[in-house]
Amino acid sequence: MDFLDALRQQLGPDAIIPPGEPMASYLTERRGLFADRPVLAVVRPADSAGVAAAVRSSAEHGIAVIPQGGNTGLCGGAAAGTGDRAIILSLERLNRIRAVDADNFSVTAEAGCRLSAVQAAAAAVDRLFPLSYAAEGECQIGGNLATNAGGMNVLRYGNARDLTLGLEVVLADGRIWNGLRALRKDNSGYDLKDLFIGAEGTLGIITAATLKLFPAVRERATAIVGLESAESAVALFGMLRAESGDSVTSCELMGRQPLAFAIDYADGCAEPLPARYPWYLLIELTSSAREAGLGRRLERALSAAPAGTGDYRIADDADEAAAFWRLRNGIPAAQKGAGASIKNDISVPVADMPAFMDAAARIVRAACPGVRVCAFGHIGDGNIHFNLTRPETMTDADFLAEWDPLTAKVHDTVMAYNGSFAAEHGVGQLKPGEVSRLKDPVEQDLMRRLKSALDPTNHLNPNKVVPPAGD
Amino acid sequence: MDFLDALRQQLGPDAIIPPGEPMASYLTERRGLFADRPVLAVVRPADSAGVAAAVRSSAEHGIAVIPQGGNTGLCGGAAAGTGDRAIILSLERLNRIRAVDADNFSVTAEAGCRLSAVQAAAAAVDRLFPLSYAAEGECQIGGNLATNAGGMNVLRYGNARDLTLGLEVVLADGRIWNGLRALRKDNSGYDLKDLFIGAEGTLGIITAATLKLFPAVRERATAIVGLESAESAVALFGMLRAESGDSVTSCELMGRQPLAFAIDYADGCAEPLPARYPWYLLIELTSSAREAGLGRRLERALSAAPAGTGDYRIADDADEAAAFWRLRNGIPAAQKGAGASIKNDISVPVADMPAFMDAAARIVRAACPGVRVCAFGHIGDGNIHFNLTRPETMTDADFLAEWDPLTAKVHDTVMAYNGSFAAEHGVGQLKPGEVSRLKDPVEQDLMRRLKSALDPTNHLNPNKVVPPAGD
Repeated sequence: MDFLDALRQQLGPDAIIPPGEPMASYLTERRGLFADRPVLAVVRPADSAGVAAAVRSSAEHGIAVIPQGGNTGLCGGAAAGTGDRAIILSLERLNRIRAVDADNFSVTAEAGCRLSAVQAAAAAVDRLFPLSYAAEGECQIGGNLATNAGGMNVLRYGNARDLTLGLEVVLADGRIWNGLRALRKDNSGYDLKDLFIGAEGTLGIITAATLKLFPAVRERATAIVGLESAESAVALFGMLRAESGDSVTSCELMGRQPLAFAIDYADGCAEPLPARYPWYLLIELTSSAREAGLGRRLERALSAAPAGTGDYRIADDADEAAAFWRLRNGIPAAQKGAGASIKNDISVPVADMPAFMDAAARIVRAACPGVRVCAFGHIGDGNIHFNLTRPETMTDADFLAEWDPLTAKVHDTVMAYNGSFAAEHGVGQLKPGEVSRLKDPVEQDLMRRLKSALDPTNHLNPNKVVPPAGD
Repeated sequence: MDFLDALRQQLGPDAIIPPGEPMASYLTERRGLFADRPVLAVVRPADSAGVAAAVRSSAEHGIAVIPQGGNTGLCGGAAAGTGDRAIILSLERLNRIRAVDADNFSVTAEAGCRLSAVQAAAAAVDRLFPLSYAAEGECQIGGNLATNAGGMNVLRYGNARDLTLGLEVVLADGRIWNGLRALRKDNSGYDLKDLFIGAEGTLGIITAATLKLFPAVRERATAIVGLESAESAVALFGMLRAESGDSVTSCELMGRQPLAFAIDYADGCAEPLPARYPWYLLIELTSSAREAGLGRRLERALSAAPAGTGDYRIADDADEAAAFWRLRNGIPAAQKGAGASIKNDISVPVADMPAFMDAAARIVRAACPGVRVCAFGHIGDGNIHFNLTRPETMTDADFLAEWDPLTAKVHDTVMAYNGSFAAEHGVGQLKPGEVSRLKDPVEQDLMRRLKSALDPTNHLNPNKVVPPAGD
C-alpha cells in the first residue's frame, strides 16, 4: 500500500491533506524566504500515538518529517527544505490541556495548544505561565519548546527551557518517550528533556510538556527612563534588580532611532518625555503580592539612579503603561515604514552590550554609509534586535542585496564579544551556514554525534540546525 | 614509556600520587559503602589542558577515569568501582575564579573551586550565588554541577543546572569543548551543557563553569509553623509564595518524629512552639530590597493562613532564626542518636507529597513493624528525605539487613506517584540497579545511546549512572 494510503488508514481521513487540497497555511512562511515548497502531504494526527505512527511509517519509507506548530517561526525551521521527500507533520490537533495543578505550580499541555491557551489555563487557577511574546495568540507550545522561545519575561522567569519540567517526545523510530514528570528535583539519569528543547524537531518531536507555573501577578509598575548612554542602562538595570527585590520583569532598551520610527510610523505613539535622549529604557516591575508598593519602590530607586540616568516617568495607570508599551511594540512595524531592514537576533553578555553596539555600528556604517542602526530589545537578557534600516538615499533592493555581507559583519562582531548569532529565534534553515562558519568545530562535532545517535537515518527535520559534516 | 611515567612527564611530578603514597583522602567515601578501592594513581592536573592530557592518555591506554571534586557525594559517583583499571582524576588544583561580572550577574569558576569560594566571590561584588547546602565548605563546584546539586534554596533559585550559563568540558577523547558563554539567550545549536550537568562525569569532565548570580540578600524573615497535616504545608506554601511576592527561599517540612530526635539528640535544640504538632514548617523569605517589609508580610500571611495551620512564631532576630535552623539542620546527626537509619532521597510532585508519605509509611510499617518514619526536607521542591529509623526494639544490624527490600518498597511507591528515586544526590554506583529496574526502557535506551555517542570506549567513570544493556 502507498505511504499516504497507509497513513490515512491508520490516522483517519481527516489527518491527511494531500497535494491538490488546500494546504497554503502550512506552506506559507512568515518571512517569505522558504515559502510554498511542495511536500508529499500535510499530516495532522489527533494524538501522540498518531504522531508516533506517522513518524514510524515515514522512517520506514525514507520520508522526511517536518514538525510544525503555529508556523510563526522566523528561521524556516517549520518550512520544507528544497527537494525533500517530506511531509509536514502538524501538531495542531494535539491541543488539550491535560492537567493543571495549582498546588504543584504546574500545567501539562499538548504540543498543539496555543501559547495563549496555556496562559489562560494557568490564569484560571490564579497562576501565571510567564512565557509571552507577540505571536502568543498563534504560536503553539510545542513550537515554543522546539525553539526554546524567549520573549518579554525572560530576565525574571527564563526561556521556555527554564519553564519546562517534563516532556513527552516521539523519537525518530516512532517510539514514545514519556518524560512527563512534574518534579522540581530529579537526578535519576541523564537530562533528556533539554536535548529536545531548542532542537527544532531534529532529534525528536515534542508532543506534550509539563510546565512550571508561578503565582499570578497582582501588582505592576511601569516606567520609561531617558538615558545618556547604553552603559547607563546596564548600571540602572543592575541597581533596579537589587533595589526592587529582583522583581524586574521587563527591561527593554530603545535607541532614539527606533523610538523615532515608532513615533513617526506607528499608531498611538508619542514622545514619552519632555526632553530627548539617545537611549530609553522601559522598565516593568511585577509582584504577586498585594500592596507590594512597587510604584513607591521604583520612584525611590529612580530618584537615586546612577549617573547617566535622565528624566523618567512612572505610569500613573494601566493606560499610561500601555502607551509606553506601544512605543516598544510599535517598533517592528514602524521600521517597515522607514524602508527595508536587515534583522539580527543576537546576544552578548549584558555588561558587554554597549561596547558591542558601538563596535558593530562603526563596522556596519563603514561598510554601508548612511545605514540607520535600529537597536532595541531585551537589554536585561543581553539580547538586542540589532536591526539595520536602509540609508534614506538607497533603494530597498540595493540595501537587501547587502544582507549576507552586513549580517556576516554583525555576527563576526558578536563572536568577538563571546555572543550568540541566534539568540531567541533559533537556527532553522536560515543559519546552519553560520553554525558551520562560526561555531567551534568541537561543538559542531558534538551536535552531529547527537543527531546521529538520536536520528541515525536523518529523517527528522533534515538540514535544519546542524550543518552537514565538512560544510 | 609506562602510562604513569608519561603522565608525570606531561603534568609534572606534583600531579601524580602513585600507590604507596598517601591517597587515603581520595579513597575514603562518605558512606563507607565504596571506600578504599585501589586505583592506579590519583592524578591532579593543574589546569584544563592537563585534564585533557590525562584523559587522552587514559583513553589511549584503556584506563578508566574517575573524576573527583570534594569527594562529598553520597552515591559513590566519585569512588572507584570494583576491579577497574582506573585513575582518580582530582580537579582540586583547578581552583581559580576566572572572572566575576557584577553587571552581567555572572561568575566563571574552575571546577575545583569550593562552593563556599564561589559564594564568597559573588559576595565580594554584592551578589549572591544561591547554591547552598551542608557540605558547601568542602564540596567543589565541578562536583556540584556533575551531580546537579540541589540544597536549601532550590525552590527560589533552582538546582545547579538552573544556575549554569556555560561550561568548559574535557571530552572522552581529550578534546576541550569551550562552552563558557555568559549568555542569557542562546539558541545557536543543541543545548550541550545540560547533557554534562548531572551526568556525574560519565559523558565528559567539567573543568570550568559560568554561573548566574543574583542581587545580594538584604532582608530575611524566618518563621516556624505548627501544622495539623502535611496537606496544610502544601496549601500554606502555595499561599505564601503568592502573598510574599514569590520571595519564599526555603520551605522545610519536619515531622514530629525528626523534630523530637533533634530536640533529644542535637545540641542547642528546644521545643519551638508551646503546643506540639504532627508537622512543622520552617519558612524563610528573603529579599534584596532594603526595607522589604518581609516580617510584616509574613505575619499578615500567617495570621490569615489556611485551615490546618496552627501556632507559629516569627523569629525576632538572627539568633532566633538560627535556633529554628538548628532544629532542621540538627536532624541528620540526631537521627544517628536514635539508631541506624535507611535514607531515601526521593521526590514527587509537591501536591502529591502528603499522599505519598501516607502510602509509603503504611507500606514500610507493614513490612517492618515499629519502624520510625523520619520524614523531613524540602517540601517546596517535593523533595523529602523519607528516612527510616530502626524500631526501638531492633538492633542496628538487623534493621540494616532490611535496606534493600525496604528501599525497594519506598522506590516502588515513589514511582506510583510519578516521582524520582534519585532527587538530589544522583545515581553514582549506588542506584544504577534502580535505573534498570524502574526507568522506562525507552529512557534507558536513550541514556545508552548518549553514553555511546560521547564516550564510545566507556572509559569515563564507567559503571556509574547508566546500567549495562540487558541488566
